[in-house]
Amino acid sequence: MNIITISREFGSGGRELGKRISDILGYSYYDREIISAVADKHDFDERYVEQVLESAFPISVPISYGKTFSYADATGQQALELLTSQCSFLKEAAEKNNCVIVGRSANIILEDMNPLNIFVYADMESKMKRCRSRAAEGETYTDNQLKRKIRQIDAGRARHQRFLSDKKWGDKAGYNLCINTSNLEIKAIAPIVADFAKHCFESDVK
Amino acid sequence: MNIITISREFGSGGRELGKRISDILGYSYYDREIISAVADKHDFDERYVEQVLESAFPISVPISYGKTFSYADATGQQALELLTSQCSFLKEAAEKNNCVIVGRSANIILEDMNPLNIFVYADMESKMKRCRSRAAEGETYTDNQLKRKIRQIDAGRARHQRFLSDKKWGDKAGYNLCINTSNLEIKAIAPIVADFAKHCFESDVK
Repeated sequence: MNIITISREFGSGGRELGKRISDILGYSYYDREIISAVADKHDFDERYVEQVLESAFPISVPISYGKTFSYADATGQQALELLTSQCSFLKEAAEKNNCVIVGRSANIILEDMNPLNIFVYADMESKMKRCRSRAAEGETYTDNQLKRKIRQIDAGRARHQRFLSDKKWGDKAGYNLCINTSNLEIKAIAPIVADFAKHCFESDVK
Repeated sequence: MNIITISREFGSGGRELGKRISDILGYSYYDREIISAVADKHDFDERYVEQVLESAFPISVPISYGKTFSYADATGQQALELLTSQCSFLKEAAEKNNCVIVGRSANIILEDMNPLNIFVYADMESKMKRCRSRAAEGETYTDNQLKRKIRQIDAGRARHQRFLSDKKWGDKAGYNLCINTSNLEIKAIAPIVADFAKHCFESDVK
C-alpha cells in the first residue's frame, strides 16, 4: 500500500495539504477519523480521547519495580490503552487502502510499512495569519496568546513523538520532504506535492 | 530576478539537482563559476581560492584593539578579501539573470534579494553510494574514511554559514523546501522541484 504521513506545525496548513493530496491521488484520508474510532471503541467522548492522546505523555511511562511494573497512575494506563487502540486503527487503515494520514504520529507508528513522510511548517507570522483566518467566531486571542498557543501545541506534538521514538519531531532527517508553506497557497502546491509522492511510489522508493 | 539557491549535504545530489533545474527553467547556473571568477580577479589558483573560501573561517574574524582592529593573520585578511569578492560576484550574477546558485552560502549572501532556498539531503548510505558512483579512478576510501570525509565537508559548510549568519546551516526554518534524495533519481525529481519553484515565483511569494 502507498502510505503518506503528514506531520505539521500548528497553523502551517498541513491538514489542508493532506486532504487535497488525498483527493488528487484518490487515496483514503485519515485525521480525526482515527480519534473517532478510538473514542467509539472505548465509549469515550472524542474530545477526551484527543486530549488524552495528545497531552497525557510522558506520565504514562511504565515504571519498573524489580520484576513487576506498574504505571504512574490510572490515567497513564488509560492513555496507553488509547494509544494502543490508535496504533491498531492506524495499521488496519494502512493495510487496507492507499492513504494519507495527518498527525497521530503515523510516521513513527507505521515506520515498518515504509510510508512517505512529509513535514509541513511555516514562519510564525504566516501561521498566525492562517489561524486567524480560520478562527471560530468570537475567538479573541491577542498576538502573544496565539503565539503561545501555537508553541504549546507544537511542543505537545514533539513530546508525544519523543515518547514513541528517538527520532526528533520536525528533524528533517526523519522526513522525505519538508515544505515551508509561508505565504503559499496550499491549493496551488498540493498537485506538486502529489506529483512528488506519485514519483516516489512509482519509482519504488516507497 | 528569480533566484534559486541550493544548499546541500555532500553526496546528496544537490549539484545535479541545481543544474537540472536551471536547464528546465532556462536559468543561468552558478557553482564553480563563482570560484573561477574570484580566482581570476585575484590571480590565484582556483583550488587555492576554493580551499581558502571553504576552510579559512573563523580565523579571519577581525580582532579589535581599542579603536583600531587587525586580523588574526595575513591569511585571515586574504580570506576576507576573497569572501568579499565572492559576495560581489554573487550579487552581480543575481542582479543580471534569473539563476540557480549551488552552494557558496548564496542563501545568506543574497538574503535581501529574497531567493527561493532549497536544502538537499540524504541518509549516509545513499550519500556514500552516490559518492562511490562518481569517484575518480583509483580513489580507494574505506567506508569509514568516506563517512569521515562526508561529515568533514558538511561540518565545514556549517562552520562557514555560522561565520556569516545566525541561521543554522541545514535548519529547515531557513529554507523553502528540504528534499531527502535517499534512493531517488535526481533526474526524475528535478521537474517537480522546478514546478514548485515556478509556482513560488509566479504566485509572487518570491
